[in-house]
Amino acid sequence: MAEQKATNITWHSGAITNEDRERLLNQKGIVIWYTGLSGSGKSTLAHAVEEKLFENGNISYVLDGDNIRHGLNKNLGFSPADREENIRRIGEVSNLFADSGVIAMTAFISPYRGDRDKARELVPEGRFIEVYVKVPLDVAESRDPKGLYKKARAGEIKEFTGIDAPYEEPLNAELVIDTSEHSLEASADIVINYLKEKSLIN
Amino acid sequence: MAEQKATNITWHSGAITNEDRERLLNQKGIVIWYTGLSGSGKSTLAHAVEEKLFENGNISYVLDGDNIRHGLNKNLGFSPADREENIRRIGEVSNLFADSGVIAMTAFISPYRGDRDKARELVPEGRFIEVYVKVPLDVAESRDPKGLYKKARAGEIKEFTGIDAPYEEPLNAELVIDTSEHSLEASADIVINYLKEKSLIN
Repeated sequence: MAEQKATNITWHSGAITNEDRERLLNQKGIVIWYTGLSGSGKSTLAHAVEEKLFENGNISYVLDGDNIRHGLNKNLGFSPADREENIRRIGEVSNLFADSGVIAMTAFISPYRGDRDKARELVPEGRFIEVYVKVPLDVAESRDPKGLYKKARAGEIKEFTGIDAPYEEPLNAELVIDTSEHSLEASADIVINYLKEKSLIN
Repeated sequence: MAEQKATNITWHSGAITNEDRERLLNQKGIVIWYTGLSGSGKSTLAHAVEEKLFENGNISYVLDGDNIRHGLNKNLGFSPADREENIRRIGEVSNLFADSGVIAMTAFISPYRGDRDKARELVPEGRFIEVYVKVPLDVAESRDPKGLYKKARAGEIKEFTGIDAPYEEPLNAELVIDTSEHSLEASADIVINYLKEKSLIN
């Protein structure tokens, strides 16, 4: 009983840390930030990496339009201020996931260098992996999975990234992956191999 | 090689589900929502439960003022609209954590029944555990860990919950724990035992 009370005192401090959680999960809590044009394959690649991580015993979670735009960020529109706030919140949430020990993966165009750099600054050094999912505009436009390029060309959507709004390419991305040159599996392996090289997963 | 390509096609669908993650983590992804007066012991209890969960091999993460108010919600003040938005965002983020398979624990006064019920509605049935951390006002006020009650009584803080703003007690909380009657360890065990009874952890 005395021993249990001592334990009690210890846990009174409530000091489960990021390192404890990483030890439990046997991985590092990181943010993998996929950025690139609409149609570049960010979300597809993130989900392919998710599956490979799962097969490797790692827990990850993809934040993308499906679970963010209709939830946390449903009160944001497409004004410049709202677009910045959209990315800011995603950065904050992905940092919370990384702190919890989970591998957070975000799949958003995130066209502005400054917004991405702010997300990077939230996360401890070496724990933010920027993946530039790079394809030529004509390839992205020919894929046009949601018909958005067609609408942008017709003027039905204004300020569409790559058409009449800029995409600011990353200057120092940890990884640049051209999904028009690599298969999905090869692209996912590039990410997985990077994580293993950096000892972020086993 | 043919077999590997078949695998490729499978994971193209990117279909790692909540159930997959829960199987990997050997727990259910849930939200434990601690609510109660300032000084009731919400955050202390959440961190005590966190430690017991950790010892049991479970991954959990506490959202509280420390990691939310200076990050995700740093652009919110204390107007009624901002207070509602504060709780809304916390509800959305805790739901994302639960979807990832993690046990999310939130420790905020969250005085309004309607705000808490909205958070509950985001989460699948049976996965939202509302814990009313109940203490008599005079006990909370005598603890006054941050000196806030003193300031509220002096009129330096307006609309302080329990003094000149209401606390709406939960009507159907899964758990009601009076931290003036139970030790911290006993209080934490009440939560842990509930989770085991409901097969949310092993």
